[in-house]
Amino acid sequence: MSKRNRHSRRRNKILERKAGVKPGSLLIPTEAYAPRFFLMSFNEEKLMEEELKTYEELMQQVRATPDMRHWIDIRGYANQTMLEQLITDFGLHPLQMEDVLNDYQRPKVEEFDANRLFIITRMLRWSPEFHTLDDVQLSIFTGPNYVLTLQSDYGDCLDPLRERIRVGKGIIRQRPAMYITYAILDVVLDYYFPVIADIGVYMEELEQEVLRQPSKSTLHQVLDLKSELIKLRRITWPARDLMNELLRMDENTIPAHLRVYFRDAYDHAVQLIDLVDNHRDMASSMVELYMSTVSNRMNEIMKVLTIISSIFIPLSFIVGLYGMNFAHEDPDTGKVLPHNMPELYQPNAYPILLGLMAVLIILQIYFFYRKGWFRSF
Amino acid sequence: MSKRNRHSRRRNKILERKAGVKPGSLLIPTEAYAPRFFLMSFNEEKLMEEELKTYEELMQQVRATPDMRHWIDIRGYANQTMLEQLITDFGLHPLQMEDVLNDYQRPKVEEFDANRLFIITRMLRWSPEFHTLDDVQLSIFTGPNYVLTLQSDYGDCLDPLRERIRVGKGIIRQRPAMYITYAILDVVLDYYFPVIADIGVYMEELEQEVLRQPSKSTLHQVLDLKSELIKLRRITWPARDLMNELLRMDENTIPAHLRVYFRDAYDHAVQLIDLVDNHRDMASSMVELYMSTVSNRMNEIMKVLTIISSIFIPLSFIVGLYGMNFAHEDPDTGKVLPHNMPELYQPNAYPILLGLMAVLIILQIYFFYRKGWFRSF
Amino acid sequence: MSKRNRHSRRRNKILERKAGVKPGSLLIPTEAYAPRFFLMSFNEEKLMEEELKTYEELMQQVRATPDMRHWIDIRGYANQTMLEQLITDFGLHPLQMEDVLNDYQRPKVEEFDANRLFIITRMLRWSPEFHTLDDVQLSIFTGPNYVLTLQSDYGDCLDPLRERIRVGKGIIRQRPAMYITYAILDVVLDYYFPVIADIGVYMEELEQEVLRQPSKSTLHQVLDLKSELIKLRRITWPARDLMNELLRMDENTIPAHLRVYFRDAYDHAVQLIDLVDNHRDMASSMVELYMSTVSNRMNEIMKVLTIISSIFIPLSFIVGLYGMNFAHEDPDTGKVLPHNMPELYQPNAYPILLGLMAVLIILQIYFFYRKGWFRSF
Amino acid sequence: MSKRNRHSRRRNKILERKAGVKPGSLLIPTEAYAPRFFLMSFNEEKLMEEELKTYEELMQQVRATPDMRHWIDIRGYANQTMLEQLITDFGLHPLQMEDVLNDYQRPKVEEFDANRLFIITRMLRWSPEFHTLDDVQLSIFTGPNYVLTLQSDYGDCLDPLRERIRVGKGIIRQRPAMYITYAILDVVLDYYFPVIADIGVYMEELEQEVLRQPSKSTLHQVLDLKSELIKLRRITWPARDLMNELLRMDENTIPAHLRVYFRDAYDHAVQLIDLVDNHRDMASSMVELYMSTVSNRMNEIMKVLTIISSIFIPLSFIVGLYGMNFAHEDPDTGKVLPHNMPELYQPNAYPILLGLMAVLIILQIYFFYRKGWFRSF
Amino acid sequence: MSKRNRHSRRRNKILERKAGVKPGSLLIPTEAYAPRFFLMSFNEEKLMEEELKTYEELMQQVRATPDMRHWIDIRGYANQTMLEQLITDFGLHPLQMEDVLNDYQRPKVEEFDANRLFIITRMLRWSPEFHTLDDVQLSIFTGPNYVLTLQSDYGDCLDPLRERIRVGKGIIRQRPAMYITYAILDVVLDYYFPVIADIGVYMEELEQEVLRQPSKSTLHQVLDLKSELIKLRRITWPARDLMNELLRMDENTIPAHLRVYFRDAYDHAVQLIDLVDNHRDMASSMVELYMSTVSNRMNEIMKVLTIISSIFIPLSFIVGLYGMNFAHEDPDTGKVLPHNMPELYQPNAYPILLGLMAVLIILQIYFFYRKGWFRSF
Repeated sequence: MSKRNRHSRRRNKILERKAGVKPGSLLIPTEAYAPRFFLMSFNEEKLMEEELKTYEELMQQVRATPDMRHWIDIRGYANQTMLEQLITDFGLHPLQMEDVLNDYQRPKVEEFDANRLFIITRMLRWSPEFHTLDDVQLSIFTGPNYVLTLQSDYGDCLDPLRERIRVGKGIIRQRPAMYITYAILDVVLDYYFPVIADIGVYMEELEQEVLRQPSKSTLHQVLDLKSELIKLRRITWPARDLMNELLRMDENTIPAHLRVYFRDAYDHAVQLIDLVDNHRDMASSMVELYMSTVSNRMNEIMKVLTIISSIFIPLSFIVGLYGMNFAHEDPDTGKVLPHNMPELYQPNAYPILLGLMAVLIILQIYFFYRKGWFRSF
Repeated sequence: MSKRNRHSRRRNKILERKAGVKPGSLLIPTEAYAPRFFLMSFNEEKLMEEELKTYEELMQQVRATPDMRHWIDIRGYANQTMLEQLITDFGLHPLQMEDVLNDYQRPKVEEFDANRLFIITRMLRWSPEFHTLDDVQLSIFTGPNYVLTLQSDYGDCLDPLRERIRVGKGIIRQRPAMYITYAILDVVLDYYFPVIADIGVYMEELEQEVLRQPSKSTLHQVLDLKSELIKLRRITWPARDLMNELLRMDENTIPAHLRVYFRDAYDHAVQLIDLVDNHRDMASSMVELYMSTVSNRMNEIMKVLTIISSIFIPLSFIVGLYGMNFAHEDPDTGKVLPHNMPELYQPNAYPILLGLMAVLIILQIYFFYRKGWFRSF
Repeated sequence: MSKRNRHSRRRNKILERKAGVKPGSLLIPTEAYAPRFFLMSFNEEKLMEEELKTYEELMQQVRATPDMRHWIDIRGYANQTMLEQLITDFGLHPLQMEDVLNDYQRPKVEEFDANRLFIITRMLRWSPEFHTLDDVQLSIFTGPNYVLTLQSDYGDCLDPLRERIRVGKGIIRQRPAMYITYAILDVVLDYYFPVIADIGVYMEELEQEVLRQPSKSTLHQVLDLKSELIKLRRITWPARDLMNELLRMDENTIPAHLRVYFRDAYDHAVQLIDLVDNHRDMASSMVELYMSTVSNRMNEIMKVLTIISSIFIPLSFIVGLYGMNFAHEDPDTGKVLPHNMPELYQPNAYPILLGLMAVLIILQIYFFYRKGWFRSF
Repeated sequence: MSKRNRHSRRRNKILERKAGVKPGSLLIPTEAYAPRFFLMSFNEEKLMEEELKTYEELMQQVRATPDMRHWIDIRGYANQTMLEQLITDFGLHPLQMEDVLNDYQRPKVEEFDANRLFIITRMLRWSPEFHTLDDVQLSIFTGPNYVLTLQSDYGDCLDPLRERIRVGKGIIRQRPAMYITYAILDVVLDYYFPVIADIGVYMEELEQEVLRQPSKSTLHQVLDLKSELIKLRRITWPARDLMNELLRMDENTIPAHLRVYFRDAYDHAVQLIDLVDNHRDMASSMVELYMSTVSNRMNEIMKVLTIISSIFIPLSFIVGLYGMNFAHEDPDTGKVLPHNMPELYQPNAYPILLGLMAVLIILQIYFFYRKGWFRSF
Repeated sequence: MSKRNRHSRRRNKILERKAGVKPGSLLIPTEAYAPRFFLMSFNEEKLMEEELKTYEELMQQVRATPDMRHWIDIRGYANQTMLEQLITDFGLHPLQMEDVLNDYQRPKVEEFDANRLFIITRMLRWSPEFHTLDDVQLSIFTGPNYVLTLQSDYGDCLDPLRERIRVGKGIIRQRPAMYITYAILDVVLDYYFPVIADIGVYMEELEQEVLRQPSKSTLHQVLDLKSELIKLRRITWPARDLMNELLRMDENTIPAHLRVYFRDAYDHAVQLIDLVDNHRDMASSMVELYMSTVSNRMNEIMKVLTIISSIFIPLSFIVGLYGMNFAHEDPDTGKVLPHNMPELYQPNAYPILLGLMAVLIILQIYFFYRKGWFRSF
């Protein structure tokens, strides 16, 4: 809970500060990281991979090799000058850069200039400890021979792609920069699947708990999970729309031979939505199951009370009956008072009464047994 | 439950492994079966049906009879070379083959080359033992004179169609390969109907149980069933879309005289969705019925407790009253203490009291009877 | 319930048998009736109405009067040759005839040949005894000068229309066959209104029951009714779509001067949907009402228990208190033990105690009265 | 409730009678009023307003002044000849007149002939006594220089408009007949707002009742209100569609300078839907509030029971303990039996016991206080 | 609650008065403020900012500087003449002015004349004291070189924009009036974010209360909040539509170079809807959490009752048993009655019984412990 609270509080802080600020102003979040600069330059024959110290070095490197394709990968934003330089060097719009910095954008794609794309997508992370989803924004600018990615912290889920570029000298290095864009989107999306799988595993644990011994905190966890799933749904739907929009772009932006790849990524996004919806339905079922388990537990408690009360309250009456003090004879006259509790003066009356009470108990137990109250509910 | 868990765990494993892999790579699932090769070649006059030992034999056979129509039916994928050979021989895209191998695709259709189709559909099976749905993917590639089907295990639901090809030398053997495609889709879809009928039978059993003696496991079964129905819905909707897309394809791909058949299959898919929605509504009703049955049971328990307590607690008070030890005379002076429980010293006081208590019991029972508490709730 | 079960079982049987059968095969249901042949031939001047013995006689009659308009009305399907003959004589598609025989089609319209229509609609019947909806399929083929209707059993709701043809020599006999088609659709749809009215009457009875004394079977009835209403909705929606599709057909199929009639029928279908939705909302309200009535009843039970327990348990304690045996004097020494229950040895202690207990009872009753527990909840 | 039942029964009767009747037949409802004829004829200079005795007089008047604009206002339908005359005189379609008579049409607009409109709208009335909505149909036919309105009873909500025509000799009398049509629609729609305001006031009363002392009848009222709101929604949605359709009509039917007025009316209809939805959400919240109030009341009842039982049941045990009759000495031998309830023979044992019991009571009360059970729940 | 009631009552009053009034009549709300006139006139070089005393002065000022851009900002409406003058001076339609005065319009945009816009948007305020949303209407008219804004009271959320005009002599003063329009819309929309953040903070407080000690008023607050969120949703959706409509306007109205700004504002509106939906889902979860907390509390109460009753009711029976008065010997004959409660006459019988009862208590406690009833539920 506290984790989630902290998360939403962070968002709230950002929201508060935003209001009333000039559109397109580069407001660097206070918790921003210092930027690091990574560059992969490659063509069919060779590959250069390097982390550079400054933005200037980076651009020098890029400009030095105009015949190669470049993946410029900047992590961390805490440098106003660098951001402004980026806008100038890559011909970006200040509003785009504002979107990059504001870490709560929905996935989207915008075409600008001729055939250049600005894409925002979100990388997912599942925290198995707090059972919360983290999602980090990845902003992508594509140009004729480069892909520029920006993200707010240092870690990401793109290493498998980097490995493919390093190793597979085959296909990926021959394709245009747009293919790299696709590959990034695909890796990001593919990473959703294990996250959903992790959530699935967690859901099964929760379901077992709901069935065995549901506590208030169990319901709380189920509802938290449900809200994480709703959040996930809010990320996957625009991700699908983004893919769809890319699919409908014209030949010059997305060449025909790449279309089949984007179509494939679109199918994955649709599958993701299916999986998320599936999990949401399961979470709803778990709430119903929880509610019914609480009701059943109540029934069980009531049955214990009812069985014990039903057996012993009548018996208490009986023994109370024979505890009455009706006098056998008048204390003043000594005359015997007729019919005043003659049972008390019979031989063996006590064991006979005990026997009768035992029969009563047995009858009652039989009655409850027949009603099925002893069956584990 | 365990069955379902196992199933979802299997899916999870697949999801985990998938992430970060190069698009279009042929990742054969570890539990894949060794491929078996079946071939039906036919024209209006003759029919050859054979299981072949190797893929090479199969292709040889196919190439040897270019004037016949072929249904190439490969079951099991565990052979990397064969898969690559398939891509080359039939001009497939690696991404398509990846879809074939990944057993969790939604039903879909893709047109590729000129007028060739790649269709994914799902064959349903209902396990009457575990009350779970199994669905196996059937991938179909159509060409001018062949249909290539691929599936992951050996059994399927296409035998009635094979029988029709064998026996009915009439219509089916005269039609183009696209008609075979239709016939496969139709048989797959037709097989959904008995599955839904089986689910219906199971639902009626469950409903009886909910009405007679609902236990926690009953609700669990109902919710599991509901989730299977949601899954079924997630399969039938894209199946309908697939049919609809086929209907809207142009004359060259789906000839006009076949359109009426696809239209018929589309109608079936719509009917299926109706039936599934019907079952889902029934399942929701069952949850409501269950909840109310638990509440009613609670009422019944409470009524037993209340009737017994209401009768005997006042009686216990009365007998307790006459068990009090107020002294008839002062122990020190021997003087009679006036009005101290004179009832105890009346003749016949005991039977009179018993009679009064009996009257009280009768009044109370009458009261509860009037309130309708003895009516079976 | 049993009625409904029987119904769904019948459907299930049909579903099971269907799978794997060649598309367009004429599978006559085992419970089919022997066909009966009715013919109404008419023009502005004259009218011939007859039941014919065989299909041959029927067609002879039709062919003999090519200048009249014909309503060929065949009830019952149990004759394979007749069905095949129909296909030939009227130029139908085997798939259409399969739809006619399969009694679970949704309402739909198909245009075939030039300007000929194949319409499926469903006639409703409400069984006031079992509170279930029956719906029987009516298949309509229209030609330039005939309307061919097919239905599975002998009774229908078209008699008012027949009467209008017989009597009103005016308008209906002057219009083209398409007007007869409209008239049939309109009569079928009009008949839905009294069915919905009957359901409304039944709902009010049920609502009274829910309010007065809801039992488990009441809820069951409400949920059954809700499911009948969902079924009704599943019939009325496609009926509306069918009307809409007719409205959008071109001038040659639906002449302009008839359009206003179809528009009117469309409005009726929309009204029907409104009414059905209205009833569904009321059924949902009844479920909520039922649930709350059960809760209220529980409260009432608990109040009885609590009032009685709260009054008598403390009193029982008090009388138990004075039933204690603390000795007045030491049995061994005979010395008086000080302060051991001196109340027992006071004159008038007993009536004083009774008075105090009466006050306690009155206070408690006042307390419960103030809390409103005696008000009928 | 009874009011509502009567209402729905009336509707049911109408529904029943309708089935099977020839389309376009003028079935006058049995409870129809005798028609009254009102006429307002006006142009920029003068205004004539009159109630006429017969339809003939009315038409004479209209025909006598072809240079004026007329609002012909007929209330009550019980005159078959008049209805038929109307059809002839104004060139209406019998189906339109059937719609006029059938008082359960949805709001709609139809264009007929060139640029003439047939509009059905519904006037709302809220009965503050029975808390039910009444809605009366108002049918409008527009022609080049007249507006013909028909309604089933004598009262309506159009008086403000009549007043405006009488007084404001300015704008309204200069405009074409279509402006009168707009003005009627606008007044009808404007009258919805105070109805919704009345419902709002009633809802607040109900909410107070739900919070203070909800009884079964409260819920019933809330659910009835909800169903009235659903009915209202079913009227406002088509009213919006009607306005939208008018907006999309061509220049000849709705002149450009009037479009801004229709746009305004459309905005009002959208606002109405917002308000109705708002009320519906509040009604749903009230059901939730009711349910929780019933649960809370149950908790309160249980707390009373539990507190009293928990305090006195253990005390009853203690006093019962010292009511046991274990003998101090053997009655036969007179030998003292050791350890048999020595407490009974201690001096001051009774006050000590009373003290201990008081401590127990205090501890329990403290325990329940700590648990917050005395706080008003 | 009372605040909210007052608010809705105010709205109701307005609704009541509105009905039947001539469209386009300038009905000034009774609680309207006297108008105040603010003017900002600026171009790239200079800026004049002034509050003017009368409308005449204002217009004089505006007319005196035709080469500057003007933001005419009128707050308060209580001046009929001024309103009529506005209509004349700016060429507005009376219906537009009616919309301005009626403070319950949805956000919308209308194009009138050539390329002039009439926009209604709503400024939000969150009252942290009453936990209610206030929304004030801001009406905007744009012309070639002016923006005219009207609002009903004196405060607003546009100060940051005014500051930007004052300070930033750069961009904002160079752009056309349409950019000012955008900037106003953007500032209004940006101000929604901190409001949503405040609501988020309040929701977390409420959630803590639901978890710790939910009372009836907590639920009431949650439901009130939910209804505020629904209201918020009803404001944000049309705000998004408004932005979308602006985006789709032609080049002349929204110049191409401004489109990117409107697109950005549109993205913000979409984000807002996401956030509001998020909060609504959380509110729904809180209702579920509340309901389950009430159920759990009930369980807890019942457990206390059941544990205490189950332990002490049987014990009471036992001690009652040994309080019975079966006579040891016949009072008349003095003969010993055999087997009548011999336990009473055994040495150490009392401590043995106490021991047995202690064992019973321990067994029961163990039983309840095993069932997990002592675990904090």
